[in-house]
Amino acid sequence: MHKRPWNRLTPAIAALMVLSAPALAQDDDAFYRDMFEPLPALPPIPADNSMTREKIELGKMLFFEPRISSSGVISCATCHNPALGWTDRIPRAVGHLGQEGSRNTPTVLNAGFLEAQFWDGREATLEGQALGPIAADVEMAMDLDQAVARLQEFETYREHFAAAFPDDAEPINADNVAQAIASFERTLNTPNSPFDRYLRGDEGALTEDQIAGMRLFVDVGCASCHNGPVLSDSNYHVFDAPGSEDEGRFVVTGDEADRFAFRTPTLRNVAVTYPYFNNGSVEDLHQAVYMMGDQMLGYEFTDGELDQVVAFLHALTGEMPAITPPALP
Amino acid sequence: MHKRPWNRLTPAIAALMVLSAPALAQDDDAFYRDMFEPLPALPPIPADNSMTREKIELGKMLFFEPRISSSGVISCATCHNPALGWTDRIPRAVGHLGQEGSRNTPTVLNAGFLEAQFWDGREATLEGQALGPIAADVEMAMDLDQAVARLQEFETYREHFAAAFPDDAEPINADNVAQAIASFERTLNTPNSPFDRYLRGDEGALTEDQIAGMRLFVDVGCASCHNGPVLSDSNYHVFDAPGSEDEGRFVVTGDEADRFAFRTPTLRNVAVTYPYFNNGSVEDLHQAVYMMGDQMLGYEFTDGELDQVVAFLHALTGEMPAITPPALP
Repeated sequence: MHKRPWNRLTPAIAALMVLSAPALAQDDDAFYRDMFEPLPALPPIPADNSMTREKIELGKMLFFEPRISSSGVISCATCHNPALGWTDRIPRAVGHLGQEGSRNTPTVLNAGFLEAQFWDGREATLEGQALGPIAADVEMAMDLDQAVARLQEFETYREHFAAAFPDDAEPINADNVAQAIASFERTLNTPNSPFDRYLRGDEGALTEDQIAGMRLFVDVGCASCHNGPVLSDSNYHVFDAPGSEDEGRFVVTGDEADRFAFRTPTLRNVAVTYPYFNNGSVEDLHQAVYMMGDQMLGYEFTDGELDQVVAFLHALTGEMPAITPPALP
Repeated sequence: MHKRPWNRLTPAIAALMVLSAPALAQDDDAFYRDMFEPLPALPPIPADNSMTREKIELGKMLFFEPRISSSGVISCATCHNPALGWTDRIPRAVGHLGQEGSRNTPTVLNAGFLEAQFWDGREATLEGQALGPIAADVEMAMDLDQAVARLQEFETYREHFAAAFPDDAEPINADNVAQAIASFERTLNTPNSPFDRYLRGDEGALTEDQIAGMRLFVDVGCASCHNGPVLSDSNYHVFDAPGSEDEGRFVVTGDEADRFAFRTPTLRNVAVTYPYFNNGSVEDLHQAVYMMGDQMLGYEFTDGELDQVVAFLHALTGEMPAITPPALP
């Protein structure tokens, strides 16, 4: 079995890994709340891609633009579907010619807060991520030069690229496609979940079960990896999803320690971004939580505890971005 | 050549076919305006499918639901894409496994006003049309029983179908899927185009070129078939699109007179629903108008006339429905 030793640490030690001096016996839940952070209004904006209205608007057009796929009908929004939590809710992505990819589609929601993109973290930024699916044979299957050439045919795109990148003599190019899409994606955040309201001081925002679930989530050790504003450490951990033969991060680094390791996914909106794991092999959230406890923490949740943790996870569903489809040329 | 004799009628006679006693020499444009009708707020509602808020909401969900396709990623909205004038703006529809169909995707916009659906009119109503693409091998490729079974798995759909069809003991069935989708589609209308405002008395709503184009459109005979609120007679006419071998209405009726005949498409929003003709073989609106004049009316538009008619056709672009994607279960 490809397990790292800490996968079998006891819950107490797992908690210790995060907090050097935990004060578990406090009267209120400040200890628990401090593991997390309300979702900021915006993720970090890179210095070399300032976020302008023009870029966001253009990025939204490109995100919904199927004519930069070789079939002409697949866009970013096909798999990152606004109607489906900005993912596809099927086990593995289906793209060009109906081919099935090997991995589950991650949601775009709050992705700007992650420090590693894709399940294997092969790109650090949204800009780095954006062009991958356009070119991938099993996704949009479009040569990037052809995609750029297609966009250049439209006067509307020529105007929008010029407005978004006023300093560029030839603004329609692959880098700018990536910058615009990334700028749009940084607007796709889900603030004001019950958990955010709770973290900001509204104690009534969570039910008793949800608060109990939050405590369990921390005490058992889930928060060792699922912490911070999007409940992900953006780091890599070995996990063995049912039926998966995917070597994960190892494919990127060639480092044996990375074999079968995957980037910790965000848990924000986890209740509406099923199915779970790198290969989408588990549809039920109770089952997913049980397996994570068992495999990552050596902890066997009882049915009652699972109900509470799942109740807590439902409190991570925030307000979906209100998006109307753009009018494409 | 498969031409009907009236395809070569002179413009004057073509005009006579529509109006028995045309008064061509009026001072104002009342004669021309009377050929058309401002778009009503809603199309006719069938007696056996009353339009309720619950049906519309459910129909919107189903319209955007890709999990009733066998790949799990193709929905009605894939080809009838809100970002692309509720069509796909490619020559021929691309569906399951990337297969290309033989016909251009008609827009859903204002489709409730047509008395015949599909290019060959094989269904009269939106209810009759709605299930075809779900089951078609080259579109969503989903067995209808399987589609219904898939919907039954979701508590949210069970609730929505029960609310939309309160008198049905088993409300989730294919007929009700069709009724709900049709109800939603009847909301997808595009009122208040410049031409509508002109027809209602706002003489400044059209430019001089657009008014000249409207007159030409009537005088040359286009309005013989393109008349009424959506500028379609919902009838069948033989047309020979470049490269088409499609037998059209003949496939439905077996009637020799219908060979190569197609239902007159609506011209509402024609400027944003390119490419044109049954096989999407022509992308340019000037070229499409020229070919229609030449082939259907034996009239060769000059370049200046084409500009005017095309300007008029641009005045048929109305207000797009403001749709936010539904939140699917």
